[in-house]
Amino acid sequence: MSDTSPGYGITIRVEATTTSSPTSLIPAAIVAAGGTLTALDVVESHHDRVVVDVTCDTRDADHAEEIAAAISAASPNFNVKKVSDRTFLMHLGGKLEVASKVPLKTRDDLSRAYTPGVARICLAIAADKSDARRLTIKRNTVAVVSDGSAILGLGNLGPYAAMPVMEGKAVLFKRFANVDAWPICLDSQDTEEIIRAVQLIAPGFGGINLEDISAPRCFEIEARLKESLDIPVFHDDQHGTAIVVLAGLLNALRIVKKEMSEVRIVMMGAGAAGNAILRLLFLSGLKHASVFDSKGILHNESKADNEMRRWLISNTNVENKTHSITEEMKGADIFIGVSAPNVITEAHVESMARDAIVFAMSNPDPEIDPALAQKHARIVATGRSDYPNQINNVLAFPGLFRGLLDAGVSKITDEMLVAAARAISECVKPDQLNENFIVPSVFDPAVSPSVSNAVYKIATEK
Amino acid sequence: MSDTSPGYGITIRVEATTTSSPTSLIPAAIVAAGGTLTALDVVESHHDRVVVDVTCDTRDADHAEEIAAAISAASPNFNVKKVSDRTFLMHLGGKLEVASKVPLKTRDDLSRAYTPGVARICLAIAADKSDARRLTIKRNTVAVVSDGSAILGLGNLGPYAAMPVMEGKAVLFKRFANVDAWPICLDSQDTEEIIRAVQLIAPGFGGINLEDISAPRCFEIEARLKESLDIPVFHDDQHGTAIVVLAGLLNALRIVKKEMSEVRIVMMGAGAAGNAILRLLFLSGLKHASVFDSKGILHNESKADNEMRRWLISNTNVENKTHSITEEMKGADIFIGVSAPNVITEAHVESMARDAIVFAMSNPDPEIDPALAQKHARIVATGRSDYPNQINNVLAFPGLFRGLLDAGVSKITDEMLVAAARAISECVKPDQLNENFIVPSVFDPAVSPSVSNAVYKIATEK
Repeated sequence: MSDTSPGYGITIRVEATTTSSPTSLIPAAIVAAGGTLTALDVVESHHDRVVVDVTCDTRDADHAEEIAAAISAASPNFNVKKVSDRTFLMHLGGKLEVASKVPLKTRDDLSRAYTPGVARICLAIAADKSDARRLTIKRNTVAVVSDGSAILGLGNLGPYAAMPVMEGKAVLFKRFANVDAWPICLDSQDTEEIIRAVQLIAPGFGGINLEDISAPRCFEIEARLKESLDIPVFHDDQHGTAIVVLAGLLNALRIVKKEMSEVRIVMMGAGAAGNAILRLLFLSGLKHASVFDSKGILHNESKADNEMRRWLISNTNVENKTHSITEEMKGADIFIGVSAPNVITEAHVESMARDAIVFAMSNPDPEIDPALAQKHARIVATGRSDYPNQINNVLAFPGLFRGLLDAGVSKITDEMLVAAARAISECVKPDQLNENFIVPSVFDPAVSPSVSNAVYKIATEK
Repeated sequence: MSDTSPGYGITIRVEATTTSSPTSLIPAAIVAAGGTLTALDVVESHHDRVVVDVTCDTRDADHAEEIAAAISAASPNFNVKKVSDRTFLMHLGGKLEVASKVPLKTRDDLSRAYTPGVARICLAIAADKSDARRLTIKRNTVAVVSDGSAILGLGNLGPYAAMPVMEGKAVLFKRFANVDAWPICLDSQDTEEIIRAVQLIAPGFGGINLEDISAPRCFEIEARLKESLDIPVFHDDQHGTAIVVLAGLLNALRIVKKEMSEVRIVMMGAGAAGNAILRLLFLSGLKHASVFDSKGILHNESKADNEMRRWLISNTNVENKTHSITEEMKGADIFIGVSAPNVITEAHVESMARDAIVFAMSNPDPEIDPALAQKHARIVATGRSDYPNQINNVLAFPGLFRGLLDAGVSKITDEMLVAAARAISECVKPDQLNENFIVPSVFDPAVSPSVSNAVYKIATEK
């Protein structure tokens, strides 16, 4: 099987003599070198030579070079002019722009959108601050805030390198829920400075989406901002993941016909996401769970140096077991991994209960190779787009914020998160539901409206 | 003369019987009540009645009510259903939105714009921070930052009421120079907090436009940010105004055939804008100036409690005069007002030198009624759009930032500001130049490119 990815897509420009069969030999060279051909365009044609752009997916940067070399080697009449990386091309100049919603063609337009007319809008808001939601962009705007300390699975890359992810997030907000999100990457990793900066920029935003901020700082930042701001604050790495895991698990349990209150879950990873997932699962009826970190199973004597960890210790492993992951996996119904690559084995999965469910979400490399897990588990989910059942936060955050903004919510409650999860799970219709389809496609247009309606309903019922 | 304004435009919906002559009597009632009719639309027509939307400009909110009452009084068969304020309608939901520059239709798009492809972009920037300008929105993005302490001429309205102005500014940035600007209104008026917040959000922006921050805090905020950031920092209320004043004055001097080095200027107002204007004028050859604040002429014994004021005191009024504005205006060539309404008299202008030039820029009410000033001065300019020679910052800031961003400038120099002013003045062609046309129209499409080219040239020459 090919393991090329469009994330490593390249376009190669080749000049060739017309008699050298470029449109057959170049594709053949690409395929022989392991590339996946996706397009071929003749961009220039002369009587003696042609210029051809071939586009293909590759495995990685080295593979792209190998493919270019293979084309050069295929004929002395092929001249590779340029190798363009399609992902880099897409990012040139960034992925966002600002658009005006008002016309500005005449002096009359100007006198309404800016001075002198705008003065009356300012005075109306000064007289009644709540008019800001009606007369400014606040109502539809979310700040996507990061300090760059935990970018994807890549680690602490800082605020400049965080921007492409936060821009991408803003693109997703717009694409899936028409939310106007703006990336704010902060040049500090000091908890107090981050909290204060977000408080200071809050007037112009209707919500705050915290992103890729490392644990345990993310807990305090989220908690303190929730307490001090009158707009919703959401840490996507925790709660977005938790929503989609709950959605997937609700459908997985339907398939295996087990009840949340009766299953036993083993979780690997005691970080931000793991904590948020277990909170939502307990709210949804879960009773039996244990959590492992790199030191082993959490129990009464485990280090409890922050509130989230204390919560995990007091709510999981009530029998206070101290045995190994190998022992704990025996007979477990569900494994949830939010930790590191390859930390459980095929034998572990084999030892689980009948109809085992495995969520192995370490990215890009899961806690166990999904192909191995599938040999023994009935349902396997990962964070990857190239396997079935991708646990992708894109299913949750756009619709969630759409509902929050429309309802003018000031605090997110756990009930809203559970409602979002149920809405996502219900987008998989009974006749679609099967072991390889426990969450809807990210491109399913029903998901975002379903989530926003569910959240709006809960938010406005109270 | 009517003094209605499109900034106070309203649309009135009237239901009327078909036999009551609504399309002639309603317009007549509006005109009789002093409104300026701009549109009439029959929006519903039935056999016995019609619904008509009439749009007109009014003087103010009270006038709008008078006009609605006049329509009601014009016929017992007219029923005023709704009076809509067109300026408020334009602001509903705010004036900006975020647009994606990349397609997001397929999973391949997603894997390039977001994970996993985006990881490679992050790693490239982490390896070389300067790539942020190439691969993120930083290159084309400006933060429009205010604390709401000095909104237009309205005073300290706070960050929520500041948003409509900052959004309007962002609309102008996009409209006139395709710069992506985002409003950031800060929930603090503490100098240190503002400085730190701007430093923290800087990674995602290519420039900072400070706006409507009150003096003297604005001086320190600008100076400290310029010193600490590697992107251009611009305080529009100071330097934007200064650029356009210099542009207008260069053309005014051409008309009256006087040299900058020989004229004597009297300035009223020792605030942020006055200071910046004089700095640019001195750089352009000015030698003789004096400045008045509310306590009288600045001289060697005047209070000098900040650096900007010390600079004014040591550079103006070199003869150390202590007399009144009445004495100082006698024989002056140029008056520049950046202070308060009606602080000079017709007699003051009459006492000025031959071919006097008056820039009365207090807004909305100038230092002297322009009609009175025109009786004695050869050239009169104001900040208002309803008189000739409007000194409007829109002529400067969009093109200036376009040039700064394109050149990748890290510090703005006075030479760049002077180059911008010269470029604006040169947009008025010799055959267009006259007493009532010393600056180009804000809608002149040549202005922004001329300014950006001039700034780019200076910035890249060094």
